Amino acid sequence: MIGKSMEELKIGDEASFQKTITETDVYMYAGISGDINPAHINETFMKDSMFKGRIVHGMLTAGLISAVLGTRLPGPGTIYLGQDLKFLAPVRFGDTIEAKVIVKEKLDEKNRVILETICTNQEGKKVLTGFAQVMPPKK
Amino acid sequence: MIGKSMEELKIGDEASFQKTITETDVYMYAGISGDINPAHINETFMKDSMFKGRIVHGMLTAGLISAVLGTRLPGPGTIYLGQDLKFLAPVRFGDTIEAKVIVKEKLDEKNRVILETICTNQEGKKVLTGFAQVMPPKK
Amino acid sequence: MIGKSMEELKIGDEASFQKTITETDVYMYAGISGDINPAHINETFMKDSMFKGRIVHGMLTAGLISAVLGTRLPGPGTIYLGQDLKFLAPVRFGDTIEAKVIVKEKLDEKNRVILETICTNQEGKKVLTGFAQVMPPKK
Amino acid sequence: MIGKSMEELKIGDEASFQKTITETDVYMYAGISGDINPAHINETFMKDSMFKGRIVHGMLTAGLISAVLGTRLPGPGTIYLGQDLKFLAPVRFGDTIEAKVIVKEKLDEKNRVILETICTNQEGKKVLTGFAQVMPPKK
Repeated sequence: MIGKSMEELKIGDEASFQKTITETDVYMYAGISGDINPAHINETFMKDSMFKGRIVHGMLTAGLISAVLGTRLPGPGTIYLGQDLKFLAPVRFGDTIEAKVIVKEKLDEKNRVILETICTNQEGKKVLTGFAQVMPPKK
Repeated sequence: MIGKSMEELKIGDEASFQKTITETDVYMYAGISGDINPAHINETFMKDSMFKGRIVHGMLTAGLISAVLGTRLPGPGTIYLGQDLKFLAPVRFGDTIEAKVIVKEKLDEKNRVILETICTNQEGKKVLTGFAQVMPPKK
Repeated sequence: MIGKSMEELKIGDEASFQKTITETDVYMYAGISGDINPAHINETFMKDSMFKGRIVHGMLTAGLISAVLGTRLPGPGTIYLGQDLKFLAPVRFGDTIEAKVIVKEKLDEKNRVILETICTNQEGKKVLTGFAQVMPPKK
Repeated sequence: MIGKSMEELKIGDEASFQKTITETDVYMYAGISGDINPAHINETFMKDSMFKGRIVHGMLTAGLISAVLGTRLPGPGTIYLGQDLKFLAPVRFGDTIEAKVIVKEKLDEKNRVILETICTNQEGKKVLTGFAQVMPPKK
């Protein structure tokens, strides 16, 4: 049940997770985060905006990155130290997002790993990019 | 319903949002994000860890920052461009987290604003810090 | 509030429950069960499959049987001892499923009852069949 | 993203998934399944019963088996054909359940696999046993 340790991780290792993000996800996330911005829950307000309708919270999409790091690479036991995020394009209700992480750098003496993190929609468009810093599990 | 525009925002302006994060929040967030890492949903696995029990997803705590930006400062109409996050300490089920944002820099010609973002627990301990970059609404 | 006892149950007694199963049900169930199989939450992956789209978890459909047993026949106080399930056809988002249970056998000396369990979709197609073994409430 | 095929599966292969089942899970599952049996949602009714309090729906626990089959072994692409379940002991709110599946039999000509399925609580007590029949993904 324990993920990959520093020794087992290699530069270039990658893993991903895909999910179709639904209205249900957005509405439940609005309740959990308290982010009741009309951008996410007010169709009347948004249908005349540049987005032409409600959009998914950027931070909800970012959660898929956390899912990959915590369940696949490095996996269970990983400690999440930091993440930077660039929100590049809107995610709409019903989009299928793939979150991919790629090992980019190993800081062995500090037991830290830097991973590139990329979220792409069903048309291959990047919607979110950035880098994660994690402490992989010890064995 | 529209938030503050570039002209209305001043360096040093701040706003915050507080929420007690519950087991329910964490379990629903695990489903939404797909992050079913045992750190969040397996008490048997976690009670003997350094954390002494299940902890809240860092990215769920980060959602409170999004809530402040999107509903209070700058508020509705804000476009979230980027965020960097440093996860400093674990958040436990039942902790009350305050997310605060403070206007730090105004890039007028690009219509962008940099805000410091700080999440603190009920004991005043910083659990998450970083900076947000947003495009405030136009009027 | 107590259901039917051994004495009150007769061979051939039946009861049913119907529900339209929604995307919301499937997404919340994915979080509860941890079953984030792409079959249920990834439309891009599934639209080219033999199912032509996301399908409902078979075990979610089975929950409707539990609902009939625990609330209608025998009803509250029933102890669920066993169930066998044959998944015969996919259930799609928006399908209306009827779960029906029919008393087939009474094992009086052991206070056990065998019920046939059948789930049918809105077109009358059987999607799930099997048998339940329960201990009806005592009075 | 595709799970193990018939050729890759070996007798004795096993996989598992653990989750602490909470009141939230039970209440959300009650809504999804329609199983509002007082055994699960009425503490007053249940505190004087032989169970001394509300218990988890047996079929909710069974969902963890579906999670292992659909995400780990055989994994994505698996078609669930059948399951039999023996509910052996009550699961209480807060119990940490491990669902384990073990490959027992391969019916090559029919592309079917039989797996033993066992759910155990945090004290090692078996709460649910049975057998699953699945069609593993083709490659």
